[in-house]
Amino acid sequence: MSEKVVKSDIEIAQECTMKPIEEIADQLNLSKEDWEPYGKYKAKISLDVLDQLHTKEDGKVILVTAISPTPAGEGKSTVTVGLGQGLSKIGKNSIIALREPSLGPCMGIKGGAAGGGYSQVVPMEDINLHFTGDLHAITTAHNALAAFLDNHIHQGNTLNIDVRRVSWKRVVDLNDRALRQVVVGLGGPVQGVPRESGFDITVASEIMAILCLANNLNDLKERISKIVVAYDFDKKPVTAKDLGVEGALTLLLKEALKPNLVQTLENTPAIIHGGPFANIAHGCNSVIATKMGAKLADYVVTEAGFGADLGAEKFLNIKARYAGFKPSLVVLVATIRALKMHGGVPKDELKKENLEALESGMDNLLKHIDTVKSFGLPLVVAVNRFITDTDEEVALLQKLCKDHGVEAVDTEVWAKGGEGAEALAHKAVSLIEEEENNFDHLYSLDTSIQTKIETIAKKVYGASGVEFSAKAKKQIVQFEKEGWGQLPICMAKTQYSLSDDPQKLGRPEGFTITVRELRPSIGAGFIVALTGDVMTMPGLPKQPAALKMDVSEDGKAIGLF
Amino acid sequence: MSEKVVKSDIEIAQECTMKPIEEIADQLNLSKEDWEPYGKYKAKISLDVLDQLHTKEDGKVILVTAISPTPAGEGKSTVTVGLGQGLSKIGKNSIIALREPSLGPCMGIKGGAAGGGYSQVVPMEDINLHFTGDLHAITTAHNALAAFLDNHIHQGNTLNIDVRRVSWKRVVDLNDRALRQVVVGLGGPVQGVPRESGFDITVASEIMAILCLANNLNDLKERISKIVVAYDFDKKPVTAKDLGVEGALTLLLKEALKPNLVQTLENTPAIIHGGPFANIAHGCNSVIATKMGAKLADYVVTEAGFGADLGAEKFLNIKARYAGFKPSLVVLVATIRALKMHGGVPKDELKKENLEALESGMDNLLKHIDTVKSFGLPLVVAVNRFITDTDEEVALLQKLCKDHGVEAVDTEVWAKGGEGAEALAHKAVSLIEEEENNFDHLYSLDTSIQTKIETIAKKVYGASGVEFSAKAKKQIVQFEKEGWGQLPICMAKTQYSLSDDPQKLGRPEGFTITVRELRPSIGAGFIVALTGDVMTMPGLPKQPAALKMDVSEDGKAIGLF
Repeated sequence: MSEKVVKSDIEIAQECTMKPIEEIADQLNLSKEDWEPYGKYKAKISLDVLDQLHTKEDGKVILVTAISPTPAGEGKSTVTVGLGQGLSKIGKNSIIALREPSLGPCMGIKGGAAGGGYSQVVPMEDINLHFTGDLHAITTAHNALAAFLDNHIHQGNTLNIDVRRVSWKRVVDLNDRALRQVVVGLGGPVQGVPRESGFDITVASEIMAILCLANNLNDLKERISKIVVAYDFDKKPVTAKDLGVEGALTLLLKEALKPNLVQTLENTPAIIHGGPFANIAHGCNSVIATKMGAKLADYVVTEAGFGADLGAEKFLNIKARYAGFKPSLVVLVATIRALKMHGGVPKDELKKENLEALESGMDNLLKHIDTVKSFGLPLVVAVNRFITDTDEEVALLQKLCKDHGVEAVDTEVWAKGGEGAEALAHKAVSLIEEEENNFDHLYSLDTSIQTKIETIAKKVYGASGVEFSAKAKKQIVQFEKEGWGQLPICMAKTQYSLSDDPQKLGRPEGFTITVRELRPSIGAGFIVALTGDVMTMPGLPKQPAALKMDVSEDGKAIGLF
Repeated sequence: MSEKVVKSDIEIAQECTMKPIEEIADQLNLSKEDWEPYGKYKAKISLDVLDQLHTKEDGKVILVTAISPTPAGEGKSTVTVGLGQGLSKIGKNSIIALREPSLGPCMGIKGGAAGGGYSQVVPMEDINLHFTGDLHAITTAHNALAAFLDNHIHQGNTLNIDVRRVSWKRVVDLNDRALRQVVVGLGGPVQGVPRESGFDITVASEIMAILCLANNLNDLKERISKIVVAYDFDKKPVTAKDLGVEGALTLLLKEALKPNLVQTLENTPAIIHGGPFANIAHGCNSVIATKMGAKLADYVVTEAGFGADLGAEKFLNIKARYAGFKPSLVVLVATIRALKMHGGVPKDELKKENLEALESGMDNLLKHIDTVKSFGLPLVVAVNRFITDTDEEVALLQKLCKDHGVEAVDTEVWAKGGEGAEALAHKAVSLIEEEENNFDHLYSLDTSIQTKIETIAKKVYGASGVEFSAKAKKQIVQFEKEGWGQLPICMAKTQYSLSDDPQKLGRPEGFTITVRELRPSIGAGFIVALTGDVMTMPGLPKQPAALKMDVSEDGKAIGLF
């Protein structure tokens, strides 16, 4: 790695010369009618473009995923951005499709979500603050639905809603622990009907998942219609359509549904759109963004949340299914540091060479490789180099991968940007051109809820079986009776382990997965299977990052990263 | 009035040919660096423009206000837009400065807030939905402060905050009655500290008032620092600065502080920026918008909420004082219909000519005329013509005004746009050029809280005196001890009557005003005096307007108006 790595992400980003967004749009052959500016360096792309390019052949979709995350970091977004830049460097027409960051965590714990080093998307300040307002629109639509629901109950409750069985909460795009559990409607008869409720963070909203899985405006409205907000006294589900507000919610979301165009530090086009949770939702950017990318470029590089057991599994079984596209390649990101942690090395000893621990931790990577192979997809491992990695360690990693039938390519995207991903880019192109692609989903929608969950647990996690709680068993019967049995499954499992125990790093074996509860996300179009507590409203730390934030006299962000 | 009045506002707006926003910016001699586009027909103007034009002479500020509102309607925004267009028609370089509408009421009760007929600002759909995200930024900054506050309490409460005395609530930009009174922090020790709280609608946020009174980014931060969020166990105020988050909140608001540029149906430039409540806040668009307007044009036409007893009084005593500008003219809007209501005519009989009731109701107008005169300002009455007004009624109104020393100009802005305000525009220009302007605030900041309130009640409302509740008396002592005695007063009084009894129309006499409670808006920079219940979170009606809303296949709003 070169000397320049001493600079911080924000310094590097602020030194970059961005092109005006019309030049990026021009690169993509978008006409003036195809996009609208949001400031000088952001734009929204019209959904009409998808119709106009309907007959054009799609570009190749490259999915970037990773090993099970550790505190050592993998750099999945950085590799995604770096690979997009690398493809541009080798002369390929490429675009990047990323998730939109949430504001809440940004105020809580230092750190943005726009790549890093010389592989970032910009303008990073805007992207990490209000951006083009998509999350605010989702927050508003979500809370409007809650307001319509409580108003319905207050105004006579003709739908016979059981206030003890209202499942629709409210959301804010903030880390606000005090809102997790609240009582609303207090103050007497003119102030509404008292009931228990709570707030989630906006990215946990089912409307976020819906926006990310909708293929167009009509599909968005259809999905919103199906949202289950409560149950009536006969325990029958009550939907947004029953309240008659699917049109108004769609209206509130019509601009948010348009994907956002920005650029990387090297002026490669990037679409940043949608960012659902990767536990109770599917953790991928929007279907529309990925499809738009595939229409506008020959290669679209995109990512999914957490490790391949969660993000890639959901990308391939949920997102790709609803979008109707076939990914061309999976890039599995690993770092020497993280693999050593999987091999048992504590965080403060990661800088020391440790071939034994690396070999032991490699089991985690090999399991994810097997998972990707089970989907019938070609794949390559990207070794995201850190300055402390030794050549011997990298060589060992490459050898072990090769023994397993997969190539591991050394990349230096943080320090070198696209140049550091040229080898990876070349490899990606050749694998797409030469390797067989027998992509198929891991399970058919026709199988039972139980079978789908067992398939994921066994094939993806390596579990020996699944235990269902009494509650979950009852819910399976109920859900299948409601006609929800044909939906794909969205597993909510810890990201830190292949098992449902976050302490079990590496490649645990002989474990069972416990499904404690199911949740219907009928609008989004999946059944969430909860294997443990899932935090849908983060709290702030004792010293929030916000304490160091400010604005300079000339209006620049201070302390955002 | 012509035949074309049968069209609806939305039909008229959709038929209009908007100019691309760069052409509107060109009209104002703004360079490319001075503004940023938000879509094709909206822009944000850089605050640097105020500095660049520092030495340029300010344009004339024309304040549009009205008689006490009735269900018959006055059309203050429509006259504001119409007059701006009228000034353009007669060759004057003019601009309009309006408030930003709130989304909540738009979902509840049919009706936008962008003028009407041929005197509207456009794009009206955008303006009434998310616009450029200012209200979302305010919502986020407000709720971030609440989250930081609850987090402080949860993480050890070193500021010794008394959870029973937290005054900072949360906000949403929706009508959501069930959130008026809530209990937060439930669920045990890891979920925060339980306490009573509630939500207001975003326009009632003190941060909205602050944004509207700030002269620049530094002033914004200074004001945010002073927000009182709670009291400690010694009953001393705890501020945003004590929590250390004024920088982060300013960062969240840095784009929202920039005024928004749009246009009218006749392509007159319009700035729409900020929209605080007119009861617990001052009800005017932002200081920055009005000052920007005065730098960019020779005439800036702006408005204030409710009647002259509230909106104009606060504009002149609060906004003009903090902004340091001197208004050039007041336009007092009246309708024959509304004056007849003030004269005792019920709503369903307003179409019939009734000279007697008109003469009786004129008392309300005459009182407001006296109020404007007491500020030393030239004024003109604008008669906003309705199709049912008879020539005899208009003639009587004009005669009675003339007897009172004021001219009343017939205007037809709804049906004819700027053309219908040409006479008003000519009159405005000549009054500004010819009349004496001895503008002064009604009270000095040095006088006591009690004296300030009494001055407003007697001089503006025509009250014989003011009664202070025991609580208010105690608060006056406390507030003056805290050093808040030098702040201007923001009266929260019913808009329907000059008195504090909404039933007393016309010009009530011999009444006293009862001040029940004070509230410190130290960040905004005023003390709110409450004379009755003030609703800061509206509810939805039984059949919300949202039920008829939808989006067409091609992405156009349906049912928004």
